[in-house]
Amino acid sequence: MYKLVIDEREKKYLTKKNVLQTDLGKVYLKGKEFGDIVLSNIGKKFYIIKPRIPDICEKMERRTSIILKKDIGFVIAYTGLGSGDIVVDAGTGSGNAAIYFANIVKPNGKVYTYEIREEFARIAMENFKIAGVENYVELKLKNIYFGIDEEDVDVIFFDLPEPWKAIPHAYKALKVGGFIAVYNPYIEQVKKTVFSLKKYGFKMIKTYEIIEREIEVKEEGVRPATKGLLHTAYLTFARKLTKI
Amino acid sequence: MYKLVIDEREKKYLTKKNVLQTDLGKVYLKGKEFGDIVLSNIGKKFYIIKPRIPDICEKMERRTSIILKKDIGFVIAYTGLGSGDIVVDAGTGSGNAAIYFANIVKPNGKVYTYEIREEFARIAMENFKIAGVENYVELKLKNIYFGIDEEDVDVIFFDLPEPWKAIPHAYKALKVGGFIAVYNPYIEQVKKTVFSLKKYGFKMIKTYEIIEREIEVKEEGVRPATKGLLHTAYLTFARKLTKI
Amino acid sequence: MYKLVIDEREKKYLTKKNVLQTDLGKVYLKGKEFGDIVLSNIGKKFYIIKPRIPDICEKMERRTSIILKKDIGFVIAYTGLGSGDIVVDAGTGSGNAAIYFANIVKPNGKVYTYEIREEFARIAMENFKIAGVENYVELKLKNIYFGIDEEDVDVIFFDLPEPWKAIPHAYKALKVGGFIAVYNPYIEQVKKTVFSLKKYGFKMIKTYEIIEREIEVKEEGVRPATKGLLHTAYLTFARKLTKI
Amino acid sequence: MYKLVIDEREKKYLTKKNVLQTDLGKVYLKGKEFGDIVLSNIGKKFYIIKPRIPDICEKMERRTSIILKKDIGFVIAYTGLGSGDIVVDAGTGSGNAAIYFANIVKPNGKVYTYEIREEFARIAMENFKIAGVENYVELKLKNIYFGIDEEDVDVIFFDLPEPWKAIPHAYKALKVGGFIAVYNPYIEQVKKTVFSLKKYGFKMIKTYEIIEREIEVKEEGVRPATKGLLHTAYLTFARKLTKI
Repeated sequence: MYKLVIDEREKKYLTKKNVLQTDLGKVYLKGKEFGDIVLSNIGKKFYIIKPRIPDICEKMERRTSIILKKDIGFVIAYTGLGSGDIVVDAGTGSGNAAIYFANIVKPNGKVYTYEIREEFARIAMENFKIAGVENYVELKLKNIYFGIDEEDVDVIFFDLPEPWKAIPHAYKALKVGGFIAVYNPYIEQVKKTVFSLKKYGFKMIKTYEIIEREIEVKEEGVRPATKGLLHTAYLTFARKLTKI
Repeated sequence: MYKLVIDEREKKYLTKKNVLQTDLGKVYLKGKEFGDIVLSNIGKKFYIIKPRIPDICEKMERRTSIILKKDIGFVIAYTGLGSGDIVVDAGTGSGNAAIYFANIVKPNGKVYTYEIREEFARIAMENFKIAGVENYVELKLKNIYFGIDEEDVDVIFFDLPEPWKAIPHAYKALKVGGFIAVYNPYIEQVKKTVFSLKKYGFKMIKTYEIIEREIEVKEEGVRPATKGLLHTAYLTFARKLTKI
Repeated sequence: MYKLVIDEREKKYLTKKNVLQTDLGKVYLKGKEFGDIVLSNIGKKFYIIKPRIPDICEKMERRTSIILKKDIGFVIAYTGLGSGDIVVDAGTGSGNAAIYFANIVKPNGKVYTYEIREEFARIAMENFKIAGVENYVELKLKNIYFGIDEEDVDVIFFDLPEPWKAIPHAYKALKVGGFIAVYNPYIEQVKKTVFSLKKYGFKMIKTYEIIEREIEVKEEGVRPATKGLLHTAYLTFARKLTKI
Repeated sequence: MYKLVIDEREKKYLTKKNVLQTDLGKVYLKGKEFGDIVLSNIGKKFYIIKPRIPDICEKMERRTSIILKKDIGFVIAYTGLGSGDIVVDAGTGSGNAAIYFANIVKPNGKVYTYEIREEFARIAMENFKIAGVENYVELKLKNIYFGIDEEDVDVIFFDLPEPWKAIPHAYKALKVGGFIAVYNPYIEQVKKTVFSLKKYGFKMIKTYEIIEREIEVKEEGVRPATKGLLHTAYLTFARKLTKI
């Protein structure tokens, strides 16, 4: 079983090994429980806790940049994603979005995630197991531009280079009242997405950018962090309002 | 059962009446199904859909400003809130945060929400029913500054005027690895919160501000919205890493 | 001569009258000097000061929205606008940008400002006089899309619906090392501007958005203002590096 | 005389040497004029232009971080800094703010800049010469917390660790209608500044944060830059409205 180990600098390690090698020494994990503090062989303190979903998404193997909490959180809250929902997610990438969604919709909901790159699919499948959501995600080695198999879907999330190619399929797949959320780094993609959503009957189309600023609270004073991430992507939302 | 009615301007109405009075005419809802389009008595088009959680939180009765999707979403994603989690929430207010959380943790998780103002509690209870989460939320008419009854809690969320008064209780209530998230409009509250979190043993303390910008995509061009909301609150997160 | 009168709520009035009528009473200004405090006929306090450029730009007559300080300031600092510079400005609008520029480049520099709408030109001419820069601004009732008369220009500023139509003229008019700054509300205009700048030989092309947040410092705490302006325009800068 | 040399990557070099050594080869500058293109000994293209103020401030020697264009520009526009103004600036640092101000107020205005660290003063004096503003800046090796010698000042700019210590002096030094602008990285400094400004009679007190986002316009699409600067400082402005 995976443990999350945290050192004195608050650096995280996700491991199922008995011995963890770090630049702050060797840490013996065998027989240790969540909540224990362990000293490394050079006397440095390490905490051991049960990993939660964000820990796993942060430390698991990945080939792509993951969707950040600020964006995935906005998708979850905007669509009201909840227990029992049926979700379609494409492309899977390293599985980060599907893990977040599955952890919410289980045990009665399901996430269907589409990916065409076999190597990514393999990594994602492994990550679903680490996150304990493998029974609530079905990975499909299929090109979503050619169609969506599911029906009566509550929420669809697209992180695709050309999302407009799958928008007519999305409309067909969604339940009345369901949401589509599209993640686009570039403005040009946002425009094509919005015009395609309109064309295929979607309503309540809105686009947002979510900006995260870290605030540093120190003895010497409070100020926003000096440098950091300025942009990830735009999020476009729309809704299916009628049966046809 | 409540219906969400949407007019041609995309204005929403949450109702369980048979006849809805609007400035675009009277809408007869009896016998109508989700996905139907209805014309008002003056010929205006109305859509009828099943409300999802954000619709209910937007249109339900409330005495306080609600926590916005950008903020509630960040709390959910940052803590990895998921199915089965035990959550403590205070103060309840109109119930908006508790509804989002309960809709995620159900059917096996639970939200315990603390409120001292009876009038708010009454409104919140009604809202839990409308949102269909009444079996997964327990409202406590108690002052959380005096203590938290629950143990082994996964996530604690505070939207309180003086959150530092409940921080020692929060530490005791949390499971190892659990998160606290504190919502503070003012910088002074952030400072007191951070120093209190440190004092009572919390680790991995981070503060963020989440900024939402709407992007207008029109025929004449794309640009961020001219005016809008600039600030709601800061979100401070921390974690319990050891048993004691 | 114009006086700036400021009431107890810090509302500003720009006037050359002897008696100022306000909702806080009548204010007798005859014989009053800058620095005087005057009581209105209902006993309210009014300050009288000599207006500076931002006061005049804020209170003068205008038919268009003015370019905000955050944007005009960035243009000034980015181009290093200074004493003696030759500036071309188009369109004039109410004269706001030309006034700021002239106030900096005088007494040895000059601002040439192009406007095709006679009504705007008339208002701008009046505003130049109020601001005391009428000897350092030359208003041209000409369409800048058809050409720029000036040569060896230090800084060119465009606030035009189709700035790319004047970009080849700008290149010809600029001194080696000179700057062009283009103000565009829409992303599509930015793209066309950038591609045109590249095509006509400009180098060091950069685009920025400047965002202003007001911070409220009150007894009860510090926080950014809740609501406000989110977007005005993008600013694209470029430079002429060679004689041809 | 200093030349600004720009390589193919748009990297800048400020030099008065005859031969410039770069990682793209040796560049022979003797006899070259502004506007010339020179090839290095390995065939790379270099542009030669006359430096403007922002070039000098960017490339001159400095021991401190300089005040960015977004901030210095906002100070200039907010106060309406112009030809002929008398400015007090403290602390001098590398002279960056004083150079911008002097370049605007000359030939009839003047900048008085206070610095207590001799080493910084020496560097700043050298920088004033490079920028050609040495006749319009007077550097004072004095502690501004002990007093301001000047009277009838138009604009005062403070970039000091404890600006409140000089605020009573600032009030005395300012002309009626004049502005003070205070640059503070931390919120705590902002609060102390605001409360001190109020205490010593200043009016129209406002605090802002200016945020700059670079927008990348590329063939593949338009998007804000991924990473960058998030915070420099807050700018607090106030005004003297009465003689006493």
